[in-house]
This record gives sequence, C-alpha cells and structure tokens, in this order.
Amino acid sequence: MNEQIKNVAITGGTHGNELTGVHLVKHWSENPQEVKRDSFATELHLANPEANQVVRRYIDQDLNRQFNIDDLKNQSLQGCEQQRAKALDAILGPKENPRVDFIIDLHTTTANMGMSLIFNTDDPLQVGMAFYIKQKMPEATLFFNPSERLEDNFLTSLGRLNGFLIEVGPIAQGLLNYQVYSDTHTAVMHALDYLELKNTGQTPDLPMQMGGYRFTKKIRLPENEEGDITAMIHPNLQNKDYEEIRPGDPLFITLGGETIPYQGDKAVYGAFINEAAYYDQHIGLSFMEKINIELKQEG
Amino acid sequence: MNEQIKNVAITGGTHGNELTGVHLVKHWSENPQEVKRDSFATELHLANPEANQVVRRYIDQDLNRQFNIDDLKNQSLQGCEQQRAKALDAILGPKENPRVDFIIDLHTTTANMGMSLIFNTDDPLQVGMAFYIKQKMPEATLFFNPSERLEDNFLTSLGRLNGFLIEVGPIAQGLLNYQVYSDTHTAVMHALDYLELKNTGQTPDLPMQMGGYRFTKKIRLPENEEGDITAMIHPNLQNKDYEEIRPGDPLFITLGGETIPYQGDKAVYGAFINEAAYYDQHIGLSFMEKINIELKQEG
Repeated sequence: MNEQIKNVAITGGTHGNELTGVHLVKHWSENPQEVKRDSFATELHLANPEANQVVRRYIDQDLNRQFNIDDLKNQSLQGCEQQRAKALDAILGPKENPRVDFIIDLHTTTANMGMSLIFNTDDPLQVGMAFYIKQKMPEATLFFNPSERLEDNFLTSLGRLNGFLIEVGPIAQGLLNYQVYSDTHTAVMHALDYLELKNTGQTPDLPMQMGGYRFTKKIRLPENEEGDITAMIHPNLQNKDYEEIRPGDPLFITLGGETIPYQGDKAVYGAFINEAAYYDQHIGLSFMEKINIELKQEG
Repeated sequence: MNEQIKNVAITGGTHGNELTGVHLVKHWSENPQEVKRDSFATELHLANPEANQVVRRYIDQDLNRQFNIDDLKNQSLQGCEQQRAKALDAILGPKENPRVDFIIDLHTTTANMGMSLIFNTDDPLQVGMAFYIKQKMPEATLFFNPSERLEDNFLTSLGRLNGFLIEVGPIAQGLLNYQVYSDTHTAVMHALDYLELKNTGQTPDLPMQMGGYRFTKKIRLPENEEGDITAMIHPNLQNKDYEEIRPGDPLFITLGGETIPYQGDKAVYGAFINEAAYYDQHIGLSFMEKINIELKQEG
C-alpha cells in the first residue's frame, strides 16, 4: 500500500457534547498554521454539528458507530447520524477508496483515563504514532482495539490508512477544561509531527515494543427485572482506570450499599470506568488485557 | 406562621441528567423506612421524569426556574417544564397555600463545590437546618441566595415554609458516583432528623452564627462577535470553588492560551466554577461574598 500521506483530517465533536475537540477545531480553523505541515495538507471538520448544536452526544445514533461499510451502503439507514456518516463518507472517503489518508479523531471521557491513545490496527503507522506520542508524553496510555478497517464502525476507519483516536479524561460532558484542551492540543501536534517525519523519510527512533492494553469486553451494570440499574461503580474502583482488578475485588455497589465483587477467575484491567455516555446501554466499564505492543518492522 | 411540619417532600431529578437524586428517590421508594420520621409524613417525587427519560437537564426550559407565582399562573407558558411546574404546583402546592410544608430538592454540579447547602431565606428553620447539617458534616458549605418565596422560581419555593437544596459536586452529568450518592443520602438523613427535632420541640443546640457565602452574580465567559465563547476557566481557578479570587488573579484562558485576569477592585469568591449546565447561557462561574450567617432567635 502506498504509505505516502497527502491528506490528513482532524475531526472534533464526533460526539456533540465533547467540547474539547469542537473548540480545538474552531481554534485551528482560525489558526491553521498550528496544524500545517509541509509534506501533507491538514483539513479540519466538525463531525456532528447537529448534535453539537444541542450539546448532546448524538441526535439519533452514536455517530462513531456508523462507519461499517455495509451500514454506509445501506440506504434504509436514515437517522441523523446515519445520514451524517454517509455525508462524511462522501467528504472524506469513500470508504473503499478514500480521498483522505489519515484521520485523527478527538474525544473525551468522564472516566479517569488520562491521555489515552486508541488505535484499531497493529499497522506500524498507528503503532509508531502511539509510541512516538508516548515518548513525548510518557503519562499516555496505549489502548489497542483491533478491528478490520472496512468492518470497523469508527469514523477513523474512513481514512485510507485508517486513523487514530485521542481520548482524554476525566472531564464532564458539555464543558471545557484547559488541562484536557491543552493536553489534547499537544498530542495532536505530536501526531502531526510524526506523520511529517514518516512522510519525509525521517522515521523517528522508536522502541521495538511498549506496554499497553487491549480491549476485551464491556461489563454491564447490575439491573433489576424492570431493567433499571440497581448498582453503580464501587468507590474503590472509581478513577482506577488501567489498574488491576483481581478476583474478589469490589466492582459495584448497590443503591443500598452492598458490595458486588468481581467474580472472574483471572485479573483484568478496567477502562472507561463510569463513562456517562455508556449509561444508556447500562455499561459500567470495559475490561482490558495488559499486553506488550510490538512495532512491526516495515518493508 | 404555623411552624408545625406535617408534610415533607424530597424531590430528585429536577434536572433530568442529575442522576444522584433520581436514584435516591428510587431507592427510598423501595426503602421508605429510611426517610420515615414519626412527626411528619415524607413523600418522594421524581420531579422531571420526561427529562430524566432522555437524560437531559430539561426538555424545553430549566424546570428549576419555573416556580415564580406569576409564571405558574400564566397559562400561555406551555413548554414541557412550564407544564410540569404547574403539575407540581397542583401536587405539592398550590404555591399561595401549599399542602406540603417543606421541600428538600437534590442536585449535583460539575463544579468542585463539595457538599453545598443552598437556602433562599434567612428563616431560622432553614438557617438552623444548614447549621445542623454542617455540625454533622463539617466539610459542608453554606450557600445563601436570598429570594422572596412567592417570587422565587426554585422548586423548593413551593413549600409552605419554603425548602432546602442539597447540591453536591464535582460529578459529571448523566452518571452516578457512590461518594456523591452516599454524601447526599447522609445530608438528607440529617435534614429529616433536624425537622423531626424541631417538630417535637427538641430544637438542637446550634451556634448563633456560622460562616458561609452569599450569591452575588453570574459571570459570563468571554465571547467573540459571533457569540461563540473564546475562553474557558483558567486552570488556576478550576476546582477552586469557595476560594478567594483577588484583583488580577487569572479568571479565564483563551482558546489560544492567553490569560484573562479578574479586573474587579475587591476580592470575591467563586462557586459553580465550570458548571456544564450554565454553558448554554455562556456562564463561567458565580461570584460569591463571604458572610457570617446569623441564626435569628425565634418567637
């Protein structure tokens, strides 16, 4: 595959109540020199302006689950975000032969995930970007969630060479926090610098492997027979994203104060712990596996 | 005025995305003995079920601004929350001669306001409740926002003897946090115990005065000519609710990173610093005045 990158898109507000990306896109629209690099063109997109207008994650569907190739082609899917996904496919794609080479999508979370670098492929381009940013921002965490590009339903999968998510928290929905804004800004600068180095043959010196986490599954909050949630994240687990959860450790606590322990038989790691956006599906957290991530050698 | 209290209402979910009160009301509905006291009846209400259903603060208007007597009587006000306010007036009021004597309304904030006890009258009933809870929970802060009951637009003003707001943060909208849930639960227990003591002539031994804060005014975020916000809360001010802001101290920081200082000529104190719910009006924080609150002697 031709690895030369000509067009990079930065997308913000894919979730309309995650204002950090929205305001970075606005800021860079007025200050384009910050995202300009010599070897490629950078374009900026407010991904879901309708949802942003009403400061909601989405109007009808989560936009960042609408980019599977079959869904993009399915003309019966006409919800607000299903239509917006088709519009973005026309602007950035089309998915099977995209105009845009690489998409950097900006997100925030109510979970205490710090600077999380999320990528859906073990391609050296993405893994190298993650390693490069983590070299510059050692507090960052690598979050690997493998998915085949055409099947993948994330916005980033519209990019010819796929893309990269920058997910920062904790921050409430619907507001700005300067530290989160500034850290996201810094991570994007490193991501663009990395693409510039790769593009111009100055591939930076990176380790062969780094530690990270691989997504395993989503864990539901306890519910009663009426389908109402009956428990919340246990206080011992709150804010402990990427820390070990051992068999028997407290996982949830009921509205009445009873602890519900983790009943698995091997240790896991939590992420997206108490993410507000997942309450609609009664998801309490994600389980992750701790892994070593390899940077495959190219060529 | 007859101070005997026969009916107490606890209201949650007045803002539909503040889930703490919603789930406490659900919990107490199934465990009514926790809110039962011998000398009065306690009733529980989910104040804005429509907004809670979609996990938004409100559908059409902020419900907690709809209880001014003129608005309640104005039949041309037919938005979702304007109608809901009239329904609550029928259930709890009517405002000019209410059935319910006292209303405890449960709120949360994205600001770092800890346990804030908000009351709109200097009546010894409310001031005594605030002092009583602060004796039990010394970390609590007294927040005085005076308003005449019939003019007041808060839900609590429907109570014959007015009411009391319990406002806890920081917590993102749309989720539960056990510490916030548990602290709110504890504060309500103290509030009910206090009413029970008052009602049965066992008025507790309380100080003559305690320190607190009085609301002064709301401060807008900087905007450009298009009406977009151009700055956010300065990182030095974030989470510093109830701390002193002196002339020249950083207040905001622009999207480009420039600090905007406080230009007033006397020190103030901040509250509701970076409250997500106030972004729709471009409100960045409230200014407060530090005061001594007197407990007037009765009779």
